[in-house]
Amino acid sequence: MAGFRYEALEAHLRQKIQTGRFKAGEKLPSVRTLCQQHTLSKATVIHALQRLETEQLVYAIPKSGYFVTQPSVHRHRPEKVSTPSLPTQVNVPELFRDIMSRSAAFDILPTEGGAPASKHLQTLNRMISRAARSQPEQKANYYDEPSGQQGLRQAIVELYRQRDTALDADNLCITAGCQHALFLALMATCQMGDTVAVESPAFYGVLQQIEQMGLDVIEISSDPTTGIDLNELEEKTKRYPIKACVVTPNFNTPTGSKMSTNDMKQLVSIAKTNSFYIIEDDIYGELRFRNELCAPLKAFDHDQRVILCGSFSKCLSRELRIGWISGGHLQQKIIQLKLITQLASPRATQQGLTEFITTGHFKRYISQQRQLLKNQRDEWLNEISANWGDLVRFSRPNGGLSCWVELPSHIDTQQSYKALIQEGIVLTPGALFSAQSLYKNHMRLSFSQPLTEHRRTALHLLFNTLLSAS
Amino acid sequence: MAGFRYEALEAHLRQKIQTGRFKAGEKLPSVRTLCQQHTLSKATVIHALQRLETEQLVYAIPKSGYFVTQPSVHRHRPEKVSTPSLPTQVNVPELFRDIMSRSAAFDILPTEGGAPASKHLQTLNRMISRAARSQPEQKANYYDEPSGQQGLRQAIVELYRQRDTALDADNLCITAGCQHALFLALMATCQMGDTVAVESPAFYGVLQQIEQMGLDVIEISSDPTTGIDLNELEEKTKRYPIKACVVTPNFNTPTGSKMSTNDMKQLVSIAKTNSFYIIEDDIYGELRFRNELCAPLKAFDHDQRVILCGSFSKCLSRELRIGWISGGHLQQKIIQLKLITQLASPRATQQGLTEFITTGHFKRYISQQRQLLKNQRDEWLNEISANWGDLVRFSRPNGGLSCWVELPSHIDTQQSYKALIQEGIVLTPGALFSAQSLYKNHMRLSFSQPLTEHRRTALHLLFNTLLSAS
Repeated sequence: MAGFRYEALEAHLRQKIQTGRFKAGEKLPSVRTLCQQHTLSKATVIHALQRLETEQLVYAIPKSGYFVTQPSVHRHRPEKVSTPSLPTQVNVPELFRDIMSRSAAFDILPTEGGAPASKHLQTLNRMISRAARSQPEQKANYYDEPSGQQGLRQAIVELYRQRDTALDADNLCITAGCQHALFLALMATCQMGDTVAVESPAFYGVLQQIEQMGLDVIEISSDPTTGIDLNELEEKTKRYPIKACVVTPNFNTPTGSKMSTNDMKQLVSIAKTNSFYIIEDDIYGELRFRNELCAPLKAFDHDQRVILCGSFSKCLSRELRIGWISGGHLQQKIIQLKLITQLASPRATQQGLTEFITTGHFKRYISQQRQLLKNQRDEWLNEISANWGDLVRFSRPNGGLSCWVELPSHIDTQQSYKALIQEGIVLTPGALFSAQSLYKNHMRLSFSQPLTEHRRTALHLLFNTLLSAS
Repeated sequence: MAGFRYEALEAHLRQKIQTGRFKAGEKLPSVRTLCQQHTLSKATVIHALQRLETEQLVYAIPKSGYFVTQPSVHRHRPEKVSTPSLPTQVNVPELFRDIMSRSAAFDILPTEGGAPASKHLQTLNRMISRAARSQPEQKANYYDEPSGQQGLRQAIVELYRQRDTALDADNLCITAGCQHALFLALMATCQMGDTVAVESPAFYGVLQQIEQMGLDVIEISSDPTTGIDLNELEEKTKRYPIKACVVTPNFNTPTGSKMSTNDMKQLVSIAKTNSFYIIEDDIYGELRFRNELCAPLKAFDHDQRVILCGSFSKCLSRELRIGWISGGHLQQKIIQLKLITQLASPRATQQGLTEFITTGHFKRYISQQRQLLKNQRDEWLNEISANWGDLVRFSRPNGGLSCWVELPSHIDTQQSYKALIQEGIVLTPGALFSAQSLYKNHMRLSFSQPLTEHRRTALHLLFNTLLSAS
């Protein structure tokens, strides 16, 4: 049976790469050449190339073309040496506080500072300031309505409409960021002693919430490219009384994995069959690098099983402290929980942000950001690939802010944390992303900052420190 | 044994009032006249008058003098009529959401809007905007440190130093308002099923937190003038395993009560003896109308038993969403809980606020506010006293934003809530302030807004509706 036309090209190129006809680092024929050679449309060729990119057989360099990836096998992996069982120097809650005190480690070298401010961010600040100046007496004397400003909720609904997702502004509540939204979602669905399933590796912020709330956690293996293992989830729902499952279908942190549409539909169906809630972390949903909608799980939720959580922190500014939550029939409870945790949100921030979105600034800004982040992803991963490609594996996400790096198995990334901090370098150890001390030889690495010369030096010091550890 | 000199004058004046020599509404001799008649210093005379004011035997009208209060007895109290047991029209959680959606009911007529903005508030907005414009790229890309900005923490420490209270900036954490601080304090001290003692009547925000967190609550009777009944608290600590006691020593909402220094010391001592924590809500601490320091309980805490919570929401602006918490040896846990609930606070707001405090604007603003609120208290209470003084009792707080009104016992204030909302009038029913459905014939009334003609009309409609209910 004939498959899709892109599949033939994909198989052809894969075979050439795997047999060494195209060598590591070599440039593939251009899109135009491939169109001519195989009599295919440009869209079909690009689709095939993007699939190979997802498989990490090739990578793209903007305005240049597709290149063959360094093989991600541990050809020269050092022998495993038995290490004395050293006491762990920092425990995970301490590490979490320390990482957060260093701005959450989306920058290995925070002293380097952020890239120059986009003019869009300056516009956003102007809009918020203007909103603060209007009716200051009202803002000082009255709290905002519990769900937040109607205008902002409608603007968020419109952002989701562009991702083929119908939300209701009356079923949306503004929060103080995604962490706050996730906390409300867990409070709304679970009580002390309940069991929560998470992807593994999982976002440390959620693991810390689960621990502090006295919940039990079940880790479900997740593929760094395609996300949560649904067979394992289904099997574990039979053994454990899972009340909620926290998942980031679009560009999970730390791996950057993205679930397929089919998997998303199946996950919603498993939740329905087994009567648990899905808490969807959509904080990276707008940071997609390819021309795809990246609809959230919520788009496939016909049974009010999905509680959607998001925020402008990663796609716009961490300073805003503005997120959202949409929880279906749990919404009244969620609003109650927002009230008990912080009463209300600042109106000027919401009003300025609404103006920023509705006047098209957000759309223009995010489109620049996507390109910028994609380029930075390639810069960082090419640097790693070129220098340590035979010793480490890493994910190559098509969205989000970070990738997942696996080092030789004898290395414990957490052991090097303190030594690197002395050099001003912040490493995000894999241990943060598990409740069971998994991922000792992993780390999250963010490409959210440009690879400046100082950061390149820091990256080399980081890898050299890790790889020289015995 | 001779008492203090002010005591003789106080007794003399009390006797004249109680025997009807000074009649309700009559002006007392001026301070100057009393000095001459009794050969006393001005300070002594004022002290005696203020004590009578606390007893509510007299009230002050600025620049005019002291007047005899309407006797607060129910001379013409309507006969208790048996009412059919009507279903309650709104339950307390719904009422809480509804009240919050109407800006927390510190205004019976929210459509009237706030008083014109003080120039200080405009200055505050300017300072925050300026802070937002500085290093926007840093603010967008990095989270603030978990405890909040050091400068703001130091400024708050200085505000407490002026109240004879030594805090440590390193033991202070910035929160998203006092509600957030109280939530962190309860999370840090209690687990589901634990027992919390509260003043009765109590702040509804805390009662809602206790309910949502699955805690048990013990209400301790509180005097509308002098606060929590320590004998009852001590007795109940013997019968119930109290983990924490939430108390507002300075100007409790709803009553406006203020604990004496002796009582505060005794409360800390009871907490120490019985090994429970005190969660101190100090949100009204800066809103003191008389020349007294109003030190918080924390000032007498030598055993790290007191978790101090406060905010700029009531004394400056609800828009800021900036509060604080100081929790002694629980501080690391509290910071962890701040992280899991919202990661960080906005830096521009903190920086602008720090500048506002350190340049003396806060001091000037709060001093104006105190005078303004004191005058408004008198305006509102005189209106009530003049019109319904023979039917109701009310507290006359020396700080805060509201007083507690007791209506004839057959009246259920909650029953009139919906009818009044139709008229745009927000009543804050007494039932909100108890977990046991006490205070059906009470309401909280705020004097935080000027008694404009519209508000006067609304107040009359409110009382007429309540008092005509059968």
